[in-house]
Amino acid sequence: MATMTKSKLGSKKSKSVSKRWVYFFGNGKAEGNAKMKQLLGGKGANLAEMTNLGIPVPAGFTITTEACAEFYNRGKKWPVGLDAQVEANLKKLETTMGLKFGSRDNPLLVSVRSGAAASMPGMMDTVLNLGLNSDVVQGLIIKTENERFAWDAYRRFIQMFGDVVMEVPREHFEHVLDKKKQQLGVKNDVDLNANDLKDVVRQYKKIYQDHTSEEFPSDPMVQLSKTIDAVFNSWNNPRANKYRELNDIRGLLGTAVNVQTMVFGNMGDTSGTGVCFSRNPSTGVNHFYGEFLMNAQGEDVVAGIRTPQPLDELKKVMPEIYQQLCKIREKLENHYCDMQDMEFTIQQGKLYLLQTRNGKRTAHAAVKIAVDMVKEKMISKDKAILRIAPNDLNQLLHPTFDPKEKKQAIAKGLPASPGAATGKVVFNADDAESWAKNGEKVILVRIETSPEDIGGMHAAQGILTARGGMTSHAAVVARGMGKCCVAGCEGVHIDYNKKEFTAGNTMVREGDYISLNGSTGEVYLGQVKTIDAQFSGDFSILMKWADSVRKLNIRTNADTPLDSQIARKFGAEGIGLCRTEHMFFEGDRIVAMREMILADNKEQREKALAKLLPIQRDDFEKIFTAMNGLPVTIRLLDPPLHEFVPHEAANQEEMAKAMNVPVELIRRKVASLHEFNPMLGHRGCRLGVTYPEMYNMQSRAIIEAACNMKRKGIKVYPEIMIPLVGTLKEFSLLKSQMLQVIEKVFQEKKTKVDYKIGTMIEIPRAALVAGRIAEEAEFFSFGTNDLTQMTFGYSRDDAGVFLKDYIEQGILEKDPFTTVDQEGVGALIRMGITEGRKTRKDLKVGICGEHGGDPASVEFCHSVGMNYVSCSPFRVPIARLAAAQAVLKRKA
Amino acid sequence: MATMTKSKLGSKKSKSVSKRWVYFFGNGKAEGNAKMKQLLGGKGANLAEMTNLGIPVPAGFTITTEACAEFYNRGKKWPVGLDAQVEANLKKLETTMGLKFGSRDNPLLVSVRSGAAASMPGMMDTVLNLGLNSDVVQGLIIKTENERFAWDAYRRFIQMFGDVVMEVPREHFEHVLDKKKQQLGVKNDVDLNANDLKDVVRQYKKIYQDHTSEEFPSDPMVQLSKTIDAVFNSWNNPRANKYRELNDIRGLLGTAVNVQTMVFGNMGDTSGTGVCFSRNPSTGVNHFYGEFLMNAQGEDVVAGIRTPQPLDELKKVMPEIYQQLCKIREKLENHYCDMQDMEFTIQQGKLYLLQTRNGKRTAHAAVKIAVDMVKEKMISKDKAILRIAPNDLNQLLHPTFDPKEKKQAIAKGLPASPGAATGKVVFNADDAESWAKNGEKVILVRIETSPEDIGGMHAAQGILTARGGMTSHAAVVARGMGKCCVAGCEGVHIDYNKKEFTAGNTMVREGDYISLNGSTGEVYLGQVKTIDAQFSGDFSILMKWADSVRKLNIRTNADTPLDSQIARKFGAEGIGLCRTEHMFFEGDRIVAMREMILADNKEQREKALAKLLPIQRDDFEKIFTAMNGLPVTIRLLDPPLHEFVPHEAANQEEMAKAMNVPVELIRRKVASLHEFNPMLGHRGCRLGVTYPEMYNMQSRAIIEAACNMKRKGIKVYPEIMIPLVGTLKEFSLLKSQMLQVIEKVFQEKKTKVDYKIGTMIEIPRAALVAGRIAEEAEFFSFGTNDLTQMTFGYSRDDAGVFLKDYIEQGILEKDPFTTVDQEGVGALIRMGITEGRKTRKDLKVGICGEHGGDPASVEFCHSVGMNYVSCSPFRVPIARLAAAQAVLKRKA
Repeated sequence: MATMTKSKLGSKKSKSVSKRWVYFFGNGKAEGNAKMKQLLGGKGANLAEMTNLGIPVPAGFTITTEACAEFYNRGKKWPVGLDAQVEANLKKLETTMGLKFGSRDNPLLVSVRSGAAASMPGMMDTVLNLGLNSDVVQGLIIKTENERFAWDAYRRFIQMFGDVVMEVPREHFEHVLDKKKQQLGVKNDVDLNANDLKDVVRQYKKIYQDHTSEEFPSDPMVQLSKTIDAVFNSWNNPRANKYRELNDIRGLLGTAVNVQTMVFGNMGDTSGTGVCFSRNPSTGVNHFYGEFLMNAQGEDVVAGIRTPQPLDELKKVMPEIYQQLCKIREKLENHYCDMQDMEFTIQQGKLYLLQTRNGKRTAHAAVKIAVDMVKEKMISKDKAILRIAPNDLNQLLHPTFDPKEKKQAIAKGLPASPGAATGKVVFNADDAESWAKNGEKVILVRIETSPEDIGGMHAAQGILTARGGMTSHAAVVARGMGKCCVAGCEGVHIDYNKKEFTAGNTMVREGDYISLNGSTGEVYLGQVKTIDAQFSGDFSILMKWADSVRKLNIRTNADTPLDSQIARKFGAEGIGLCRTEHMFFEGDRIVAMREMILADNKEQREKALAKLLPIQRDDFEKIFTAMNGLPVTIRLLDPPLHEFVPHEAANQEEMAKAMNVPVELIRRKVASLHEFNPMLGHRGCRLGVTYPEMYNMQSRAIIEAACNMKRKGIKVYPEIMIPLVGTLKEFSLLKSQMLQVIEKVFQEKKTKVDYKIGTMIEIPRAALVAGRIAEEAEFFSFGTNDLTQMTFGYSRDDAGVFLKDYIEQGILEKDPFTTVDQEGVGALIRMGITEGRKTRKDLKVGICGEHGGDPASVEFCHSVGMNYVSCSPFRVPIARLAAAQAVLKRKA
Repeated sequence: MATMTKSKLGSKKSKSVSKRWVYFFGNGKAEGNAKMKQLLGGKGANLAEMTNLGIPVPAGFTITTEACAEFYNRGKKWPVGLDAQVEANLKKLETTMGLKFGSRDNPLLVSVRSGAAASMPGMMDTVLNLGLNSDVVQGLIIKTENERFAWDAYRRFIQMFGDVVMEVPREHFEHVLDKKKQQLGVKNDVDLNANDLKDVVRQYKKIYQDHTSEEFPSDPMVQLSKTIDAVFNSWNNPRANKYRELNDIRGLLGTAVNVQTMVFGNMGDTSGTGVCFSRNPSTGVNHFYGEFLMNAQGEDVVAGIRTPQPLDELKKVMPEIYQQLCKIREKLENHYCDMQDMEFTIQQGKLYLLQTRNGKRTAHAAVKIAVDMVKEKMISKDKAILRIAPNDLNQLLHPTFDPKEKKQAIAKGLPASPGAATGKVVFNADDAESWAKNGEKVILVRIETSPEDIGGMHAAQGILTARGGMTSHAAVVARGMGKCCVAGCEGVHIDYNKKEFTAGNTMVREGDYISLNGSTGEVYLGQVKTIDAQFSGDFSILMKWADSVRKLNIRTNADTPLDSQIARKFGAEGIGLCRTEHMFFEGDRIVAMREMILADNKEQREKALAKLLPIQRDDFEKIFTAMNGLPVTIRLLDPPLHEFVPHEAANQEEMAKAMNVPVELIRRKVASLHEFNPMLGHRGCRLGVTYPEMYNMQSRAIIEAACNMKRKGIKVYPEIMIPLVGTLKEFSLLKSQMLQVIEKVFQEKKTKVDYKIGTMIEIPRAALVAGRIAEEAEFFSFGTNDLTQMTFGYSRDDAGVFLKDYIEQGILEKDPFTTVDQEGVGALIRMGITEGRKTRKDLKVGICGEHGGDPASVEFCHSVGMNYVSCSPFRVPIARLAAAQAVLKRKA
């Protein structure tokens, strides 16, 4: 009576009486369609769409997401009118199917599934076989003539309802089943007969009652309404909330509820169940692919007790069904214009489709399918470009583990550089080099790496570090080399002295095999077989399409002629960042560099630098040659000097001997170079200001190399980049010194080359005063690694400790060292570009931080009007694709 | 003929023929006045003004700064018409004085002096006695009947002309004079007779010829024009350019040139010379003060051969001249409304004023004079406020060295905390404490200080560090304590083992006396007598006037009840920054803190924190009591945890024993806390996110203390400040946790207090997203130390190495850790305030970095609309005055 009065009063809510909460599908006609995902959820919309396409789908109805929203508006009460609409649709369903809900004769059983507009695996599970009770189960026995089947269905229903709807801990049910099997001395569920299962049902009901303090509901209407309640409630459970937060799913009304007639694949030899893909999801080949099992339910396939048969076999077993399925495959693929992942059930010779969705696929398959579908005129080139997740290309560019291999994970770190690697553990760079020379494949394991380790990193198959983030030295260098790296693996405790590490309870010694998955961060014990990178013609076609669409140029970060060549093969259109410091470590170079550092005065420094000049010039000549015709941006010396001197006593003594100076001198120099925060210390252009002779030598080496190569007919476009600039005066002072050097070289060489002098924008202040700096700088390259570090105040080498918490607690949506923080760092970038171009209209702007290879960041760079992005060689194809997608997304 | 043609052609330049380049003064009438500083320079304008006031000034004329500018426009040629105007004015001068330039009879001699609109000690010196040659000197002998005088004048002229105009190295002239005295076996110049000097003149001329390859010019017109050229040229010499760059002197046309009749104080017993001040420049007492010497020149006073007499004596010696001088004193002070510093010469019974300017004075005198002049109705209160340079108040607030003491400087560091201190050297904090307990005065000498040294810093008279900048730990803490500190003294090399340090060639051992001048950065060997701080009633009056004008509130940075009391005495209107970490070091506290750090899980941490709770609460209760009625902003724990654990092996063993745990555990923990860049590491609110129990304990301690004190009748206004926030989510997460704690305390205590929760804006990103953060934060306090570090990318502990270069080379105008960088950091501050107040109109905004006590920064804070600045207790009066000046300057 009370509710009657309320609704009669005509409150705002009572008006919704007339609102439609439920959409029916069945018998070739559905009230919804695929476009109604927001209202019906993904699953509901696709079921409706298939129904409308004339595909056999078990009839059912979908309760809308609006109903879920209204449920919350009303303090967890059903929307007015929902109960009537559910009842009406249930009636319609009974009529359509010729079955009756809750009836012993011809009983209608239903499944209930949640389904939001976005895929949300964190939400409620499915409840199957709803509608059973001790009465109905008898009807089912009669109808199916299969007592065991009926009791098993009942048993499963109680378990699912108890677990999913009433939150009775699942282990209690499992315990009963295990005990039963133990008593009978059998191993598998299938070994239980009807009587056994009947007893299980009895025990299940008791467990249910013990935990819920009520009897298991025998009224199917109560079962249904409680389950719908549970689905609604699941929308706001902590798991689902967390999932939405983490995946940035916003603006959804709620979940839909799908109530659908049960069909059974385990009703005998003319029944079966299967999963199929409209094309091969591993290879992309346009061949109908899948697996099926006769007289089985979906669960049985998963349980792995019987091996499913390949779909082709169905042609022999049930040729008509197979033909019907082939037609459905064609219809659905043509309809959705994408490879479909379908579930089907055959119930006593009749085929039902239970689900269709765009299928997951390997990167290799994704590329092939996209290119094929363009050839088949099914989709446009633009669509093909948009279909590939750029990061998935990593699978094509790096080795991967053979998916058939078994793996024993012992730790997990950050996926710092993609790929798969396997080898024997060594604990220092020298060992890595000497073992590799002897033909061993090794994995270099370090607490952290430093520039001195580069040789060993080169020699190793992969690198594992215990400390450091996604942009630590190990990570950055490994990505540059295209080498697999797992970084910041905190679970690994390394003892250099004993040459061993522990991970949990596992002890790994020098020479033991481990394997790394740089794409997931996983570390495995032992050898795991890898598969080499596989390119294809389709990949090149797709890349060409992307190139024709994108506006951004893609450059690469490369410090060596070899890297330059690799990057060029991957499509790099220039070097955006050539780090000169890596050139100071090999062989004699480090000796001359150290002489310079130890020097007391300018003359001594110049003498040491004179030794480095020809070496650097030679490097640049080779790089210019590799990049013939393309611009090469060279960053002058950036890291603090302490990175070039040894910190351990033994190495210091070695250095003293090599340089013929007292070790005390070296100790004192190293001590004087110590900094509390080297990141914010004496580095970058600050070194150039204190020791002008250093940058002068580098400018000379660059321009001499350029002049020499020009004479050889090579087209050179050197761009000299001053790092760490924060004020206009810093830049103009250094630039004017360089101009003098450059003019002098031109006179000496009696030739000239075009060149530019520009700067990194990596200090927040530089972005704030970009308008001033652009008065003198001819290009900007945003160094987003350092810019992110300083804008957030996060040291990339130290932030690992709290960044994980930050992302888990949702304080940060993404690791800002992986994807540009558009709100904060992005504000500085926008400011820098706007103000810079106000001063200098044609200012060339790019990015050379690690973000240059991150698809989301590439999209951002496009949106703010940069001219290019620069990334490590192996990410060039990813950036090319992402840049094209950025254009297409903004068009849409 | 050629020039005639040019000027007749009527080119742009020839039009300036009619322009006036020269202004005459003499005989009670001048063509210029004091307002024409830009055109006539400071000196020229004041000479004109005095002339117009009827004060006896030797006649002369001033060549304008425009003439200097035109000189450069014309490629270092005199402006058209200047020669004619100089000639005409010279004629006028001859007529006025009844003398003749270059004539043997009654010769006119002149002085030539540069003089720009701004005082520029880096420019050209003076040339005196110009107009002498071998002929004129004879006339001078006849006229003065003093042969020695005449030859001495000639000698001085050649030396000055040679040195200043022709750049003949001064030492050559000095060498001749020295040799002469050696030959004669005399000591002083005055012991040379006329003949000796005549010979010196001969030798000087030869030196001149050797160095310039021309004869010493005998034509007085040539002497004059060369000297004027030299003055013009001196405007652009490197010294002058550097000086202008460093002192930010811009927009000046050039220098003026003052040509003035020579008068001589050494023409016999009715001649003399002196310097006087219209009030006492040391004490400010309104008493005519000065010194004079009869029969002497200015140089003689400086040479210190004869002791000058106090001005009062002149009353007896030449009572009429004294009376005349008294009248001039009164006239000039009334005219300029400021204390005057005057130079006078009496030539044969006639008084001449050669200069007047506002006199330099001690801070003590400045305050007294300003207050007295208001009482005398000479100036307004506003003027009085503007007259005192805020930083000069340091002299009043800290001890100073007795100016009479002789000092031997051995090194110079940064003037990190003002004041003067003397004591015995100790090399660690423990020694400082124990020696002080035994009654010794000590200076604590450290490579750098850390929080563990606080006790020793307290016990010491002053602190000297070899490393670290103006905002290093030592500097910040010392300023907070009002204790003298010289930091970053790189010339000092410390050997802790030997307990000694070297500075240049000086070796200083433990127990040796040194003295520090924290206001200049100088380090002296031995004991130097100090004078205590001296307050006065006038100081209080001035401060009250300032308070009535200023809009900014002045708060203080104080961590202890004692600091709070001192600051309140100095006029602090609240605490803007109470750093809670300093509360964790004393006695038992550090033990509990370390227990917390060693804890493996939340329970253990909470147990350790429970021990800290009552201690913190007690601290806060005392601080609330000290600041009864005023707001107290408490910053939650900020520094990284490694600051609380010992890093040296011995201390780690001690800790292990004290805590009864294996030392290995401590070593491992300390190692795990190591960070590459602690500045950008796990600190501030990042600790609060990882260990919520820590901030919860602190919030509880604050609110419990507030409730307890409220019950005792004390008015409490706690403001809880979350440090290092960079994102809104960080802040809102922590705030919501705190709100729960606070509500719980209110329930337990059955009372409530008003409180605010706000944040530091010290991460660049926080300023960029301030609009979002203000959704939740009730106040902003700009932490400009860290904001400057991150905006520039300068670690304050490491930047010393290059900051000095940067300032010397003019890349930075000022140390950005001393004065807010308005262009870069300032842009973030403006952005933060604007965006913050867009979201929250009544957002309270302040600053709590070290900049809060820097006058230029205080002015900036006023200009951007902050509500308050907070600074160390001893800078509160400075900030009060600066805040008032900020208002008055913007009014003007």
